[in-house]
Parts: sequence; C-alpha cells; structure tokens
Amino acid sequence: MVLYRSSQIFYLARDMFSMSKRLDSIANSATMQMKERVNAVKASGVKLADLTVGEPDFPTPELVKQAAIEAINKNLTYYTSASGIPDLRNELSQFLKSHNKIDASLVGPENVLVTPGAKQGLFYVLASLLNEGDEVIIPEPCWVSYGDITKLNGGATVFVQSSEKSSFIPSISDIRFAMTRRTRAILINNPVNPTGAFYEKEYIRELVELCEERGIPLISDEIYSDIMFDDNKFYSAMETKSQSVILLSGLSKTAAMTGWRLGYIVAENKLIRDCVKMQQQTATCPSSITQYAAIAALRNYENYFPKMLIEYKKRRRMLVDGIRNIPKFSCFEPKGAFYVFMNVSKLGVSSEEATSLLLEKAHVASVSGSAFGKSGEGYVRLSFATSEENIELALSNLTGI
Amino acid sequence: MVLYRSSQIFYLARDMFSMSKRLDSIANSATMQMKERVNAVKASGVKLADLTVGEPDFPTPELVKQAAIEAINKNLTYYTSASGIPDLRNELSQFLKSHNKIDASLVGPENVLVTPGAKQGLFYVLASLLNEGDEVIIPEPCWVSYGDITKLNGGATVFVQSSEKSSFIPSISDIRFAMTRRTRAILINNPVNPTGAFYEKEYIRELVELCEERGIPLISDEIYSDIMFDDNKFYSAMETKSQSVILLSGLSKTAAMTGWRLGYIVAENKLIRDCVKMQQQTATCPSSITQYAAIAALRNYENYFPKMLIEYKKRRRMLVDGIRNIPKFSCFEPKGAFYVFMNVSKLGVSSEEATSLLLEKAHVASVSGSAFGKSGEGYVRLSFATSEENIELALSNLTGI
Repeated sequence: MVLYRSSQIFYLARDMFSMSKRLDSIANSATMQMKERVNAVKASGVKLADLTVGEPDFPTPELVKQAAIEAINKNLTYYTSASGIPDLRNELSQFLKSHNKIDASLVGPENVLVTPGAKQGLFYVLASLLNEGDEVIIPEPCWVSYGDITKLNGGATVFVQSSEKSSFIPSISDIRFAMTRRTRAILINNPVNPTGAFYEKEYIRELVELCEERGIPLISDEIYSDIMFDDNKFYSAMETKSQSVILLSGLSKTAAMTGWRLGYIVAENKLIRDCVKMQQQTATCPSSITQYAAIAALRNYENYFPKMLIEYKKRRRMLVDGIRNIPKFSCFEPKGAFYVFMNVSKLGVSSEEATSLLLEKAHVASVSGSAFGKSGEGYVRLSFATSEENIELALSNLTGI
Repeated sequence: MVLYRSSQIFYLARDMFSMSKRLDSIANSATMQMKERVNAVKASGVKLADLTVGEPDFPTPELVKQAAIEAINKNLTYYTSASGIPDLRNELSQFLKSHNKIDASLVGPENVLVTPGAKQGLFYVLASLLNEGDEVIIPEPCWVSYGDITKLNGGATVFVQSSEKSSFIPSISDIRFAMTRRTRAILINNPVNPTGAFYEKEYIRELVELCEERGIPLISDEIYSDIMFDDNKFYSAMETKSQSVILLSGLSKTAAMTGWRLGYIVAENKLIRDCVKMQQQTATCPSSITQYAAIAALRNYENYFPKMLIEYKKRRRMLVDGIRNIPKFSCFEPKGAFYVFMNVSKLGVSSEEATSLLLEKAHVASVSGSAFGKSGEGYVRLSFATSEENIELALSNLTGI
C-alpha cells in the first residue's frame, strides 16, 4: 500500500486531463476562432458581409440529394467496406480517368480510398508516412491545417516562404534548399487556398522529378482543381504518371457537399492499404448515405458544376475589380480556388489587427493572412464563395474605410 | 549537386511509402480479415450462417430516416460546428439526464462532443491524453480496436487478463497490480464485446475510486449499455458523479444506425475542448444529415428500442440454449451486448483453427476469441444481432460437428 501511496503523490501533481504534447503543439484553428467573433458581431444585430467561409453557398445539386434519399429509403444504411463502396471506388476511378485525364494505370479502384473529407484523408496519409521528427516541406501561405495535421502526426513542419512578387509560389531552388535527410514528403495545394496561386505544368514536373530523385512522395491537395479562371490550365501532379504522387481531393467544394463529408485519396496501392488500416481504426467508413450521394455527384458532374463555375467567375471579377478601385487596398488576381488575398499593408497595422479593423469599422469579416504563414503577413483572405449581394456590401463598406 | 546525390543514395535505400512505426505496430483488423474469408466462401455458393458481424440487422427506424430526408430537402447540408449541431448537443444532454440518469452537472451540452462514430471518439480521447510510452490498462478479452487505437496514439497497452471462472472480469486487485507510474488511463467496455460480461455497480465504484486516487481518467465505452438481459441492472460509470469518467457511446448499436456514423464523447469540458481540436483537424464534423437524424433517434428512442430489445432477448435465449444442447460446446451466459463467447476448447485446437473448422465443416462464420486477447483463447465469438433463421441454421450446423 505504501508503494501505491507514493505514486499517488506523483500523480496528483499533474492534471488528470493534461494534453498530449502533439495536441498541445497546435493552436485552435484561426478560421474557427474568427467564426466565433463573427457570430458575436452578428448576434449584436449588425449586418455583416461575411467573407470568411471557404464553403460554397450553393445548395447540394438536386440529383445528388435524390440519390441520398433513395439510399435512405432502400435502407442502404449499414457499415460499408472500410475502403468505401466498390461502386463508388469504380466511379471515382472512371472520373479520374475521363474527367481528370489521369493515366488508367495509376487510378484503378484499388488506388482510391474514400474518406470522410479530404482533411481526414490528409490525416491518414501523414499518419501512415511520418515518424517523430520527420520533416514535411510546405510552401506558404498555405491552408492552416497543413502544419497542424503534420504536428499531430509527430512531424516537423518546414515552411518555404513566397511573396506576391513571385505569384505566391516559392522557387524550386528554395524548396530544394529546404530539404534535409529528414525530409519525408512535400505537401502542396494546387490551386492554393488562401492566395489563388497555382502551380504550372513545368513547375509540377520539376517538383515531381525532385521528389523522385529523393525517393519521397509529393502530396498534392487538388480539391479546388476545377475552379480555375481565365486561360490558366490546371495540370494535376498525377498527369506526370509518377508513382510518387499522392493525390487528395473531395466533393465538398466542387459539388457543394461540405456537410456530407466526402473526400478521397488516390495513390499507389501500398499507401492506400496503409490508409485503410487508419480508417479501420478511426472513422470505420464515411457515411453510407454520403457515399451513395457521391456516386450521383460524379455521374452528373457536368449538369451542375459548369453553372457554379460561371458564378465563381462573375464573383471573382466583381471582387477583384472592386478591390482595385479602392486606393487603400490591392490584390493578387487569383488564378484558381475561390479566395482573394487582399493586400492591406497600407493600413499600417498587422494582418491580425487589420481583420479586427475591417470587422469593426467596415463590418467585413475576413481571415488574417498571418494565419496562413509568415508570408501571409500584410494580407487578409476574402472568400467569394458567397452571394453577389454579400460581395457588393463588402466592397461598399471597404470603400469607406 | 554532389551533396544532393549523396542524400539521394541514402533515400533510395528505403521505400517511398514505408509505414510509420505507430501504424506498423498494429495488424489488420481480425474481424475485417474474417469478413473477407466469409465473402470468399459465400461467393463459392455455400449457404453460410454468418455470425461474425457486430451490426444490428434491423433497418434504421422510420422516424429517423424521415428526419434525415427532411434535412436533405431543407438543404441542411453545410458544415456544422466542429462540436456538433447545438440542438443535437442539447438533445444528448437531455437524453443522458433523463434516460441514463446521469447527474445534470456532468452532462451539460458543453460536456458533449458529437463524433463520426464512437471509435473515432476513442481516437480523439487517446490522442488528447497519450504521450509516447504512456500506458493504458485494458481488461481483456476486449474489443480488437482498443489496443490498436492506443498504439496508434503512441501508447503502450497493458492488458489485464480474465477468465470464464471470474465471469470475464479481472479483479480490482489485478488492475491495481498492473498500474505503474506511466499508467495514463483505464479503458473498459461495459457491457463487454466480445464476452457479454458486465461490470456491476460496486465494481465500477471501486474502479472509479482507484482512478481518482491515481488522478487518471476512466474511459468507459458504454455503447451497448441499453442491451442488458435478465435482472442485470446497468450502472454507468458516470453515475458515480466522478469527473474522472470519460463516457463513450453512440447510436450505431441501439438505434441501428451503423452506416450513418454517429458517436459521442461525454466528459469534463477541458477534455471535450481538446477533442474538438482533434475533430477540427480530422473529420471537421460528422455528416450534418446524420446529426439531424440523430436528434430524431434520441427523441423517439422509446418508440423503437424496446422492440429491438425484445428481439435480442429471444435470440440470445435461442443461441445460448442451443449451444448448451451441443455436447462439444458450452458458453458463458451474456449479461449484456449481443454476443455469445462460445467455449470451443473441447475441439482440441486453437481458437484460430476452430473458426476455420466451423467455417469449413459447419458453414458457421465466427470470430476467433484470440483476436480479443490472450484470455480469449479457447473461445469463438458469435453475434446474435442477426435473424432467428440464421441462428437456427448455425445451431443445426454446429450440432453436426
């Protein structure tokens, strides 16, 4: 008993729910924190132009909704295989071949894993690849979760900065310079949230070559790949036909299915099997109803997506032109995705302070550029996945600042 | 360039997709492997009595399905808060108070986190608590994923064995003996998958006292808590009113909602906030449609669950009595959940070999007891979450062995 008492003293000295080191290393999501502040302002009765959310305002297409309702009525509500319903994996394989023009040898159904969102997919990939201290190279500004998911899986983040001058894409030589013996993967988003930058064909080819040379994977998050503007032609990392590429994507953005939770990983079968093991021990499978809805979303893609793209084009034009007419602000013209990275350096305050200023003085809700990395300092992110009315309100309010 | 060449040699020596140590430490799920073998036998045209799956054969209740369809028609298909829809958290809080008789001070909406399944909930809890090498005490036989999810989060498993003689519950003194300075949590399932054992009120009180003494949480997975038989009265660890208890549960088993993916964590708010951080970096939120369905499932619980329980009682009686009439086998009478842990030691082979024998000679599919830990050797698990016809077929086939 005495023995136990002594360890009791040891134990009482620490908090029962003290956080694990990995979880403790990450902050609460900046976009989520902004959401709370926005909700507080809204609750006070102020009419706000909320441009924070990276979520299409379109409802899910009718045919997709009907497919889900049919699945429910048919009681297709049991566990599915941990790798997803075979019909959905087949459909995705077809879609990747015909729509994304990826070589058939790389995208058989066995190369596809369906996940509850692309973010969970990225979690599986990094959990499969990383040991404590392994480095992941991430060009920035980048989506807030890349660093956090890396750290949650024991990895060390190696951010490579970029600037508006270089169209928010770091040079290949900067990436090469960042590599060490501990580099385990390179992680890019193409086109890029939050800047709207994109990686051109030649760049992707060089990057893949570099990865092959080092024997490491290129993780390419291409969730916005169909939302491209002007003559910018998207080139998937998988079009290089390199087995080093791990493709991440999902239906949230292009099929307006955020709440459904559907993403997918496309990769060499060995990695897919490892990720299936992760899924067996976490989500089990994505919602069966969502999976049936996803089959319809892929089959009917041409019926709804082109219409959405026309809307995004209009909104982008409106927001970019509007910002350029306000002397205090300027912006990089987004080539893809649905964000404008607005330069707020003339305000003479930090990005963080700029978002507060915009929120309080102009009733425009934005996300601080610094949330996306050091290179984001001096900018705020505005989403145009929102109504024209909302964008007009934002522009008119910003003019007065 | 020469410098890079030398590291290139270093890199080519290892596999591009080599598995992380944590993931490499776990095997593919034994139940999933059995599923594949069962499918192969089924495909060969043999009529099989499949008693492997821990999944209700009942369809999801009609009112729940209607609520989901309504949510889809109303376009409630956007991201929800990472902690879940407020209405659902409120409803769960109410349900825990009125149905589970848990003290209101422990189960406010801020104490509840909605997750895509209880398994993902357990993943969040262990990711929040464990540092590399922290020990988790797990009584066995236990659900296959407990050990794996512990290892995936860097923990070390400390299994405490039990036997049929002690009704498959290890003594408190055995648990106490297993504790070290590195013990970070105790993880139990009540009632127990795979044995149908259950922890009585006095035991739970002592266990909670032990946890409080050591300043560690008791993680209590109570997903089968309503499926109890005879006069065995379930006592939730939360009824002790101790803040050390982390409750895990979900709607898969009791509301026949496996494919929907809905679980929940109930705990002290600090831990809930940590788990929200995990959810922000993985699932984002459970499917919004599933969340609306879950509200209806909780509100209408008394309309469907008592009928299901009557069925489970009949099936259990049938399976237990049937087994006891076959001289080669015997079984522990399950007090809760929907499994029978059948003693196959008279076959004179290992559990693993017994499942092969039963599958090939009797066309009965079961899961090897050894998959649930060393104490499971000599047993196979049979699920009675299946039709009476299926159970009858199994019994008649087993008689011939």
